[in-house]
Amino acid sequence: MDCDILVIGAGVLGLSSAYHMKRRDPYKKIIVIDKYSGPGQGNSAKSEGGFRNIFTSETNYLLADTSIDAFTELEERGHDVKLEFIGYLWLFSSRQYEAIKPAIEAIVKRGDSVRVLSLDELKEAVPCLVTEFGGDEEAELLGLEDVAVGVLGKKCGSLDTDALTRAYEAEFLKLGGEIMYNTEAKRLLLKPVEELGIPGEPFVWQETRIVGAETIKGAINAGKTVVACGVWASRLLDPVGLDSYMRPKKRQLFAFKDPKLEPLFKVRGLNSHGSVPLTILPKAKVLFRSELSEGSIWLGCADDLGRKFELEEDPQAEENYYTDNVYHVLVKYFPCFGDVRPMNMWAGQYAINSLDETPVVYEAHGMYYVGAASGSGIMKADALGRILDALVAGEEYAELHGGRRFRVADLGVRHRHVEHEKFVI
Amino acid sequence: MDCDILVIGAGVLGLSSAYHMKRRDPYKKIIVIDKYSGPGQGNSAKSEGGFRNIFTSETNYLLADTSIDAFTELEERGHDVKLEFIGYLWLFSSRQYEAIKPAIEAIVKRGDSVRVLSLDELKEAVPCLVTEFGGDEEAELLGLEDVAVGVLGKKCGSLDTDALTRAYEAEFLKLGGEIMYNTEAKRLLLKPVEELGIPGEPFVWQETRIVGAETIKGAINAGKTVVACGVWASRLLDPVGLDSYMRPKKRQLFAFKDPKLEPLFKVRGLNSHGSVPLTILPKAKVLFRSELSEGSIWLGCADDLGRKFELEEDPQAEENYYTDNVYHVLVKYFPCFGDVRPMNMWAGQYAINSLDETPVVYEAHGMYYVGAASGSGIMKADALGRILDALVAGEEYAELHGGRRFRVADLGVRHRHVEHEKFVI
Repeated sequence: MDCDILVIGAGVLGLSSAYHMKRRDPYKKIIVIDKYSGPGQGNSAKSEGGFRNIFTSETNYLLADTSIDAFTELEERGHDVKLEFIGYLWLFSSRQYEAIKPAIEAIVKRGDSVRVLSLDELKEAVPCLVTEFGGDEEAELLGLEDVAVGVLGKKCGSLDTDALTRAYEAEFLKLGGEIMYNTEAKRLLLKPVEELGIPGEPFVWQETRIVGAETIKGAINAGKTVVACGVWASRLLDPVGLDSYMRPKKRQLFAFKDPKLEPLFKVRGLNSHGSVPLTILPKAKVLFRSELSEGSIWLGCADDLGRKFELEEDPQAEENYYTDNVYHVLVKYFPCFGDVRPMNMWAGQYAINSLDETPVVYEAHGMYYVGAASGSGIMKADALGRILDALVAGEEYAELHGGRRFRVADLGVRHRHVEHEKFVI
Repeated sequence: MDCDILVIGAGVLGLSSAYHMKRRDPYKKIIVIDKYSGPGQGNSAKSEGGFRNIFTSETNYLLADTSIDAFTELEERGHDVKLEFIGYLWLFSSRQYEAIKPAIEAIVKRGDSVRVLSLDELKEAVPCLVTEFGGDEEAELLGLEDVAVGVLGKKCGSLDTDALTRAYEAEFLKLGGEIMYNTEAKRLLLKPVEELGIPGEPFVWQETRIVGAETIKGAINAGKTVVACGVWASRLLDPVGLDSYMRPKKRQLFAFKDPKLEPLFKVRGLNSHGSVPLTILPKAKVLFRSELSEGSIWLGCADDLGRKFELEEDPQAEENYYTDNVYHVLVKYFPCFGDVRPMNMWAGQYAINSLDETPVVYEAHGMYYVGAASGSGIMKADALGRILDALVAGEEYAELHGGRRFRVADLGVRHRHVEHEKFVI
């Protein structure tokens, strides 16, 4: 056996998992492999980099809230993760707010730092926001409703996903972990527990297990094999008939830097930077945030119906997706975007679990899977790494950052127990 | 609009659904399309044709039990479905039986016709079965345990899937339903609810719906679109970003007819034919049954780990899968198979929902899906057709055959409620 544990994927989930496993037992030989030349170069690198603890699902809340605390600690330990608590700001029409009100009240009750802003408070805080569309025929055509309420999550903001991934990489390496980059896994190794040396093994009557992976640099035999390679997981799992419980879907990001957008950095009282929070429009799932490091705005749109499921090796952003689709809605709420063109754009892929939009962590025949994070894997990375570690260690409960406990099987398959999330973006 | 409801797929699920919808409202224009030249020529035709009401999950039980009653009624109405109550016979080692005993007791409590056979009763009923392997080194190598108990389900047996599919087709046509064969759906039609006639529609800010399908014979516009095309569903759903909640997996069948197999037609007291029930071996998920119409034996093996997920257009049975894998186990329990070669073999594909192995029926944006039946779609076809019909009609509950009620959302996505099945083959 070449190692105790092989981790396939050096994205944020793979490295967080590797770190927590190594922390549990530094004497275990753990090897992380990745097809790219460095950490987090798959979809971790392409994320919006938003984080929030505002979820109605207790599961999602626990996963994100404890991970945010863990990221804060990483900063305290000297990793420049660029955690910026700029907040998340949901804009709602009064109709939408009525529907979501009970959920928000439950979140407030949980003790989270949420602030509900009246229309006047909203206007005061974000003067460049248009809230009324009376008489605007184009707005009517677009189906826009007047903005009535803002909901601000304070333990929310942005981080540098690349730095976060490198922080877990550094901590893992510090404990003696090994990483092999440029080492793509071609297939999982499947072997009978008791090998007979007969051609044709494994046979259906043999107990069979996943025992590592064949890579482009040769076989790596492992006691346990962790699959943490995001949207690429199905490439490894499908051939052995195991499910990844996710489908890949493209998500595009557009970055803007323009003097016209100055008002978005002159917001009042929502965060300590005076910059616009990660703001979710009431229409078309358009969202954007300030990126403080470069004084820019990053914008995305969580389109759903009509956006295909497909594994793409190199997904591309489509400029006309912004100009023909998003722009028309955006500019109504925030006229400062008028005639501003993206200075940069890119696309990544979400690994969407459309059953309950919650990550999946399960074991089957020596294969340990963490994935299907549905676009929120980064902000939950610390908790997911701990849960994967607990599963590998055979523990019933994982201890999340700060000591909160989490039943490992809740994210599994057979005894899955997760709540329906009402705060989906 | 060309029709009120378009059903894609003239397999048993599509035709059962179409029939029940047409029965609810004969004035609705319902068109069924299929890429093949006749009914049930996809995977319906390739099934083992077994049916059972023996499930631990209440959901599975209700779906199958009421469907079996419905099939019986179809026979009474003159459809020669070839329903044969030959029974299902599970063979267990004492270790296995101890583990499954509570489940069997619960099933017995439910009032189902289950008979538990002691070792002596089993030997008496199936004299050609070997139950003890003491001293047999090969059996030890194969990991075989002595057989200790048999569990016989009586409301179980075999049917002619082709005839069943044709029965639903005939009933649907009798009510004035329309079917277009040789009419492959190429893609689902996606349109804004309020079309503006602007190039580039639908835009992200428009409310969008599935309104039929583009077929090789042109577009068919429909008020509601039912996707019931089994493993091919993802071909239509993936491009619009909707999930089929299933992965295709090959299942092979081998048919045998040989004088050596005579003992399998001289079984005592298990069914009225004196033929071997659908018998599930304690090892390797090997199962076979008597096919009374041709005096043959049909054998399959539900291999799992190592059998890839992949949509195959024309899956093929592999003779060496039988000879190198299944045969060695089979012949230990039933030596009468010694040196008997398959006279025929074929393969189909299961649409496996590996989350809970229970069918999925859900609606999204005018698309109504029934599928992911995980290999038990035929035996549940009547109930699934009724549940799909209730969903399309906007009913909260479906009335299953015999008047039993079923909450439609239980098979859905958001409020899914199904029990873990312990009696998986």
